[in-house]
Amino acid sequence: MSELKNDRFLKALLRQPVDRTPVWMMRQAGRYLPEYRASRKDAGSFMDLCMNPDFACEVTLQPLDRYPELDAAILFSDILTIPDAMGLGLYFETGEGPRFKKIVRTAQDVADLPVVNTPRDLDYVLKAVSTIRRELNGRVPLIGFSGSPWTLATYMVEGGSSKDFRFVKAMMYDTPEVMHALLDKLAQSVTGYLNEQIKAGAQAVQIFDTWGGALSHNAYMEFSLRYMQQIVSGLIREHEGRKIPVILFTKGGGQWLEAMADTGADALGLDWSTDIGAARRRVGDMVALQGNMDPSVLYASPARIREEVKTILDGFGRGNGHVFNLGHGIHQFVDPENAKAFLQAIAELSPAYHD
Amino acid sequence: MSELKNDRFLKALLRQPVDRTPVWMMRQAGRYLPEYRASRKDAGSFMDLCMNPDFACEVTLQPLDRYPELDAAILFSDILTIPDAMGLGLYFETGEGPRFKKIVRTAQDVADLPVVNTPRDLDYVLKAVSTIRRELNGRVPLIGFSGSPWTLATYMVEGGSSKDFRFVKAMMYDTPEVMHALLDKLAQSVTGYLNEQIKAGAQAVQIFDTWGGALSHNAYMEFSLRYMQQIVSGLIREHEGRKIPVILFTKGGGQWLEAMADTGADALGLDWSTDIGAARRRVGDMVALQGNMDPSVLYASPARIREEVKTILDGFGRGNGHVFNLGHGIHQFVDPENAKAFLQAIAELSPAYHD
Repeated sequence: MSELKNDRFLKALLRQPVDRTPVWMMRQAGRYLPEYRASRKDAGSFMDLCMNPDFACEVTLQPLDRYPELDAAILFSDILTIPDAMGLGLYFETGEGPRFKKIVRTAQDVADLPVVNTPRDLDYVLKAVSTIRRELNGRVPLIGFSGSPWTLATYMVEGGSSKDFRFVKAMMYDTPEVMHALLDKLAQSVTGYLNEQIKAGAQAVQIFDTWGGALSHNAYMEFSLRYMQQIVSGLIREHEGRKIPVILFTKGGGQWLEAMADTGADALGLDWSTDIGAARRRVGDMVALQGNMDPSVLYASPARIREEVKTILDGFGRGNGHVFNLGHGIHQFVDPENAKAFLQAIAELSPAYHD
Repeated sequence: MSELKNDRFLKALLRQPVDRTPVWMMRQAGRYLPEYRASRKDAGSFMDLCMNPDFACEVTLQPLDRYPELDAAILFSDILTIPDAMGLGLYFETGEGPRFKKIVRTAQDVADLPVVNTPRDLDYVLKAVSTIRRELNGRVPLIGFSGSPWTLATYMVEGGSSKDFRFVKAMMYDTPEVMHALLDKLAQSVTGYLNEQIKAGAQAVQIFDTWGGALSHNAYMEFSLRYMQQIVSGLIREHEGRKIPVILFTKGGGQWLEAMADTGADALGLDWSTDIGAARRRVGDMVALQGNMDPSVLYASPARIREEVKTILDGFGRGNGHVFNLGHGIHQFVDPENAKAFLQAIAELSPAYHD
């Protein structure tokens, strides 16, 4: 593997000194980019694309080519590859989001689910990782990722997206042993999946707990965080002579940062509802913090975006352990020039916060 | 006005001793009740219903007739009556939620908006309040309500519901002076609206800040909480010889409870993501707490619902200042028998937490 030319993202995750605050954007390879829309145009369904390592590589690199300020690449894939590999039949309906052909509702449904064997069942993801890693040629590190067990379970039990999580919460409250059996299979699958991504070349990994914030305090601890902890404990933490940092991101999890830091993760992703200065005071001696500008700020003017960047840099303050990011994925209607203004503001303003 | 026979809800909001924890449910007059669906069947559009004081009275009383455990009634109305009265033309598209014929996007749009004169523009709401109050005949107190200025503004600028708040956040970040002008008109309108509801017979009022949780910490303070504070400062706080308690509810506002308590509100509504014991330790010497069971627990079995009720009673602990509620509105697919199990569990279990 070629030498890493820009390691400020990995260093910041480990709270080591850097020359400026590193930055990447959740969903940076996506529909807001005209080059992405052009690539997708004749390329088949969304899942066909995810399963095509050359396409995944092409779109992963697009934002890096456009924005030299980016300090990391993230694997282009979907969070629902694991339930798909378990045999549920993932597909996408226009305007409806992800759907599954098979739905998991009973103890028998859960018993019938296999634990995913990544090299056999998700080989296309590993090929994408190694292809991207080769094509990156050491420019920036590559982030691997997975959905959290709870987040994956919500889609598997509801059959798709949900507003009230009617069926998955009924399962959780009425038959917690069935829910735990499902989450344990998912945690085993995710652990193997992330470890194989690391072996294939991912240099950091992020666990996306998109729906942990839909849980009560107690339910979050028992049904979401516990399984992320299990995953963190099972991950390869060093590879190719480097530490592999682990980032936990629970959207709506601002009240639970201390417990998240206790998992042994290296960094926590923050959504924009949390004050990053307050978060640093709470857990900054245990973990790095990634975030946390409201992605909707990118609908404002470049001058205003720059002010918001400064507010967050001031909020975190001087010193180590900050990776700049949006608090959630970049929205599809954002002007790419505004994303550029965001990234340039970080590159220009952040050196003053480092020695 | 007839004497109030059950005042434990009002007492608990003022942190006075009660015999058991009072309870009501957000959206307790609603689609989960077969009698509500029957009443609505031939009654025209949703707005026609809201504008009909007799219908509003009929459906407000339905849950009280079914569930003698309920300790409060809440006015049946919509949170968007104020923007409708400002001339925006509220209507409901099936499956799409609320929409407006006129959308507010520019400084001129905001300048053109009137401040609502409630007796003239929203007389139908005041008639509903006085009708319900008369028909309640002192059984339980009546809660009046309004949406918060920020929450109303999101619908007015987006033209309806939104996922990313694209236009309203662009307005907020790019032209904060326009946003402030809009929010100030709304705060003046809401203050008058709630005061008129109080004069017509509402014995407590709640401000619903459904979308405050979509804001960053700083933006919440500047664009949502500030205007709720302005309203709280302008409310009639005593009427008919009784204190009129004010409840603030920001969904997703668990990180901001201290600042919410500083507004001078009597009580804070909690969604289910916040641990109610931790919330009491933070602000329980300043305000009462209302909440906070996950409404999706009502999809579980009666036995399980009872356990969750006990967990929340234990979480708050012994003593004054707790109103039991769901953390958000009751879902439409809940079995009314499960709502009954919820209410009975509170009536049966909660006396042990009071002297």
